[in-house]
Parts: sequence; C-alpha cells; structure tokens
Amino acid sequence: MESIKVFAPATVANVGCGYDVLGFALQGYGDELILTRRKDEKLVITSIEGVSGLPMDPTRNVSTVAISALLDDLGLRKGFDLRIKKNISSGSGLGSSASSAAAAVFAANQLLGTPKTKQELISYAMAGEKMASTKAHADNVTPSILGGFTVVRSCQPLDVFNIPYPSELKVVVIFPQVEVKTSDAKRMLKSEVKLSDAVRQWGNVAGLVSGLILEDYDRIGKSLEDVIVEPVRSILIPFFQEMKKMALKNGALGYSISGSGPSMFCFLRGNENTQEIVWNAKKYYHSHDIEVIAFVSDINPSGAIILD
Amino acid sequence: MESIKVFAPATVANVGCGYDVLGFALQGYGDELILTRRKDEKLVITSIEGVSGLPMDPTRNVSTVAISALLDDLGLRKGFDLRIKKNISSGSGLGSSASSAAAAVFAANQLLGTPKTKQELISYAMAGEKMASTKAHADNVTPSILGGFTVVRSCQPLDVFNIPYPSELKVVVIFPQVEVKTSDAKRMLKSEVKLSDAVRQWGNVAGLVSGLILEDYDRIGKSLEDVIVEPVRSILIPFFQEMKKMALKNGALGYSISGSGPSMFCFLRGNENTQEIVWNAKKYYHSHDIEVIAFVSDINPSGAIILD
Repeated sequence: MESIKVFAPATVANVGCGYDVLGFALQGYGDELILTRRKDEKLVITSIEGVSGLPMDPTRNVSTVAISALLDDLGLRKGFDLRIKKNISSGSGLGSSASSAAAAVFAANQLLGTPKTKQELISYAMAGEKMASTKAHADNVTPSILGGFTVVRSCQPLDVFNIPYPSELKVVVIFPQVEVKTSDAKRMLKSEVKLSDAVRQWGNVAGLVSGLILEDYDRIGKSLEDVIVEPVRSILIPFFQEMKKMALKNGALGYSISGSGPSMFCFLRGNENTQEIVWNAKKYYHSHDIEVIAFVSDINPSGAIILD
Repeated sequence: MESIKVFAPATVANVGCGYDVLGFALQGYGDELILTRRKDEKLVITSIEGVSGLPMDPTRNVSTVAISALLDDLGLRKGFDLRIKKNISSGSGLGSSASSAAAAVFAANQLLGTPKTKQELISYAMAGEKMASTKAHADNVTPSILGGFTVVRSCQPLDVFNIPYPSELKVVVIFPQVEVKTSDAKRMLKSEVKLSDAVRQWGNVAGLVSGLILEDYDRIGKSLEDVIVEPVRSILIPFFQEMKKMALKNGALGYSISGSGPSMFCFLRGNENTQEIVWNAKKYYHSHDIEVIAFVSDINPSGAIILD
C-alpha cells in the first residue's frame, strides 16, 4: 500500500465534571488525511485545506510531530507526504489538533503494516499534542483514536479505556466563531482548588460515569455539573449562560463547555428537541452578529477509520 | 407493633479515591438496636452494650438525635426506649456512629408504619452524624441504610444511589486497636488541594466506578489509589505501609484506609488469599504488641434490616 486516506473525528473533552479525564468522539466533523509514502525519509506536508495559518514546517505541525514520535519508537526511517483536510479550526474546543495527530499516527501505522494497536497509538498522538499545547494531554486524542466515550484514568503511566453509553444519547454542539486559545484557557485555572469543590467534582464524575454505563439519563443530566472549570472559562464564551438556559429549557439533560471552549455541548435523550436547540442557538448568535456553527451528533463509536 | 429489633451494618467510606463520596456496607459487624414504644414522649437510652463511654443523654447520642430529626419532620411526638448493642467502637473508621444513627431511624420508621423510604431516612441519620462530627456527611449512613456500594453524588441537595459490583469481590478489614478521632483526621486535611491531584483523583473515581459496574477487577485495583487523603492520614496508622505491602503481595487488588482510619481495607477477587492476609496482619500487629481486629467480609447487599 503506497497511500491511504483516513478520518479522525473531532472530540469533546472534559465533559462537564471530568476535566482532563473524560471525552467522547463526534460524528461527521474531524480531519481527513491522505498519507503517501515517499522514496526519501522526509515528512512533507503538501497541503492543508479547510483552515489557514497552520504550520507547514514538519517540526511544528502536530501531525508530523506525532508521526515522528511513532517512527522514532519503532526505530524506522520512512518518509511520507501528508495532505490534510480539516473542517474544524484550531481554538474551537473540539480537539482540532488532536484530530490531526490522531489521523496522522493512525494512517502511518496502517502504511507501516499496523505494528501498533489503536491503544498504543495514543501516546504518539500525545507527542503531537504536547508540541501544540506544551503539555501531553490525552483527553482529546483518546476518543479521536478509539471512538466512543473514553476515560483517561492516568497520563503517567498512560491508562485509558472506553465506557459504554446509552444508544439514545444525542449531542448538540454549539460553536460560536470566537477564538479561545487552549493555553489562555489553561492559564485562567488556578493550580489549587478547594477540597470541597474537588469532592463535589468527583461525586459528579461518579454520577456521570455510572449514569452513562447504566443508561440513567436523569443521573447523566444531574452529574453534568462543573464547579471548577466552567465558572472560570465560561466568562470567555459570549452568551454562555443564555445558551445553557435555552438548551436546558428545550430538554437538554445538561450543558457545559467542550474542552477549553468556546464550543459548548449538551446531551439529550433522543432527537426530539435537538434541531430546536440548533435553530435557537443560530438565531441568537446571528442576532448579535456572531457567526456560529451548531450541529447534532451521535457519539461516534469508531474513532479513527480508513476512508474508501 | 410495640417493639422491634434491627441491625445496621458497619461501613467503609471513602474507598481510596472517593473521599466523602464512595462507601460500602460490611457483613456481620454493625449495630443491633431494640426499639420499644413508650407511653410518654421521651427518648430513653436504657442500655448500650459492647462499648463504653458513649453518651446516654438523648440530646448527645447519635441514635436519639437521628430519631428526633425524623419525628420533628413528621410532626409527631412519640417516645421510645433504645437498647443498643454495638460491636464496633467509635474512632474505628468503620462508621460506628453512622451504624447507630442508621439503625435508630430505620427502627423508628418501622414502628411508625414506614412513612419514609430507606432513601428518605438518610437525611435523618445524617442529623445524628452531624452532632457526632459537626458536619452532616452521608458517606457512612448511606451504605449502612441502603447496603451495597453507594455513591453520594451531592450532599446539598442530597443525591445518593447504589452502583452494582462484582459478586466475587471480597473485602478484608484490618483494624489496629489505636484510636483516630474523625475530627483530628479531618483537621489534617488541607482545605485546598492541587488541581493536578484532584484530576488524578477523579480519574481514579471514573476508573473505580466503571470497574465495579463492568466487573473489571484489574481496573478496580489500579483505581484504588488516593493521592489526597491517604498520604496524610496514613501517618496516623501504625504500620500502614507494611500492611499495604503485605496485602498487595498476597493478591489484594488494592489497599487503602477505611473512612478516617485506623481501619484499613483491601479488595480481593474470591476468597483464595483472604485468610492469609488476616493471619499475617494479626501476626504482625501482635508481634508489635498492638491488638488488632481483622476479618473477611462480602459487601453486604441489604443494609439496615429487621432481625427476628
């Protein structure tokens, strides 16, 4: 195989109470990548479609940095051309850089004859993420590679796994077109938190995880409460409180920030009210002259896949 | 019905990573209570067997304070005699006061014709606990009343529930006979924790809860890690590290402090190594002239029950 075309989905990390730990994959949005073998040992980004301003320098692009980490670990010297097609911009809170890193290591692993499992690819994608945000976090790359709903129990040593979720669980994503840099959003968080807030947060994590596995929609909704990150980061997102109120009024089980924002998400049981929320969000932001992307998604069970 | 005899089990709270949130009920150990109607409106503790030094004053004993809270809420003026038989001492870390409060409200509710569900009884038992430890916490009373493995997602408003656990899960409890006062143990904790530690803790909560529900013993063991409370409180427990090492060497999935200690617990899959751990613990503490209670238990699925 000389060339392969793959897709790695956009993702929602944190999921309310699960900062740096919980995440899930979205349908439809994500990165497409065509990876082609080269005769030499160079990694060359030949094109990036869909968004502008991303580095073409292979030492500064998450995709090529991630592939380098994989090749280094395998002790291989191989060259590839990368044609990247993105439909999520960086600074969206939907794991844009993670999708690129995930697609890159997944594609390279395929062309190399799958020496690594999907689980094992996570650490190489994290190397790409580390370059993009100074810290090697796994909460976006894990669902982008594995799909489904994921838990990063520990980054050192890396221990990640999937948990089941109810089949009727639907997601609405609302992404107002204002940029929030992950590094800025991280800086806003204090390095210490109140023990009482931490206890409330892990009570909610216990609620959300058990609610998802046991298909208890009411519990999922109640547990989608974030007393540590949301109060700080929501300030950066225009009309966060208005959108949350609107979504809950329209049957959302819970509403919070996706990753470091400005994207937000809510869960619903079934599709009945999803379009209403999308429609209301668009109307509201447009009336305030802010562009917005809003869409309905299932949780994507597949993660990174081969296209064609 | 003029009189009733009930049992409410001892409990393990916190369960490693789940400080103030997780708990489970033990078999065999706990409080027996005979509650008998009186002609007047007094609450009278006629005897306390098994331990000494507990208050007989109905305004200062958790049992009678808990019954008062129930009666007040129901707008009833009733009198009861209480004969209490305890086999766990206070300051054990096994929820001694919670068992008394749980037994008391469970028995009174029965004699009153069960106006309240078991779930509803938790808040009255918490009133007893509040008197004993200044804060109304629910992590011991919830499993003592409901049985099984429990989550206190939130104390305000109260939201508690059971989660499933694997049938082969066995518990060994090791209780060296040194007293640790809950109030002292609570004072040792800082009111602020590192965000990075909190994240690690809720990653472990996600692991433990999903491991229990999905019957993943390996994940249960890995997740029984406490980076916030155990490092501080274990200092108060003689030979904590030695016991932990011994239990893990003998097949324990994980090992941590029960409640605020000095009792400790470990989980095992099946009964193969349980007696070995009990035996080793006894031998070790006896060789250091410390009395110890050590026993094997299933997780008690029933919680508070009527005896006879």
